[in-house]
Amino acid sequence: MIRRLDHEEERKLLSTRRIARLGCVINGEPYVVPVNYIFDGEYAYVHSLPGRKITALRAHPRACLQVDLIEDTCHWQSVLAFGDFEEIHDPTERAYYLGKLLARYPLLTPVESAMAEDAEPPSIILFRIRIDKICGISES
Amino acid sequence: MIRRLDHEEERKLLSTRRIARLGCVINGEPYVVPVNYIFDGEYAYVHSLPGRKITALRAHPRACLQVDLIEDTCHWQSVLAFGDFEEIHDPTERAYYLGKLLARYPLLTPVESAMAEDAEPPSIILFRIRIDKICGISES
Repeated sequence: MIRRLDHEEERKLLSTRRIARLGCVINGEPYVVPVNYIFDGEYAYVHSLPGRKITALRAHPRACLQVDLIEDTCHWQSVLAFGDFEEIHDPTERAYYLGKLLARYPLLTPVESAMAEDAEPPSIILFRIRIDKICGISES
Repeated sequence: MIRRLDHEEERKLLSTRRIARLGCVINGEPYVVPVNYIFDGEYAYVHSLPGRKITALRAHPRACLQVDLIEDTCHWQSVLAFGDFEEIHDPTERAYYLGKLLARYPLLTPVESAMAEDAEPPSIILFRIRIDKICGISES
């Protein structure tokens, strides 16, 4: 049976999963990459090196995050959360959310610290998606 | 170390994984859903009920399939395959590829057979993405 998830189920899946597939649009073409993220109920925070997705999101900030829990072909939940890309530049906010990301994903390179040591400007990108629409479904 | 996958590694990942995240564009907004698929080296075949992604792909046929194998935050492979959506209407082709999909994913509802029994036209959609660009990376 396929059904819509309720608000609480959608939030729970978004808050507990560790990998999202981030979708964006590059010159009218879809582009999807896996990302680690944290969701605080309003924003999803993501840490990234510069690259195609960042260039794309700066040009066309509409994004989606697809998060799922798939047991098998007919037992799964999937949530799609849509929102706008916002880059975080404020040093205090950067330090706070990078700290949260590193606490949840300790294997992520702590680029911020490495950069501070050799006095180079940080090349790591920290951004968030302000979630304004969520749609979840499940099959069981 | 992050590196580009070679052609053979990209093909291997696409051929062996069972879940892809299908990306498409709806009114300029990215849309991503998990799908089961088979890849024959040229096309990726997908079975679907009617819904938002089908409406979107009929209107804007450019699509991508993101496929990955993620061990942890810094050990993963991800391939992004781009191509155009083509719906398959020919009954012989439909039977052949639906058979292949059902052989690989036995839990998928064999809608085609159910439909044949009550003489309704099949509502199941069978489509393929003609892959014309592949880009794979890995971290290890």
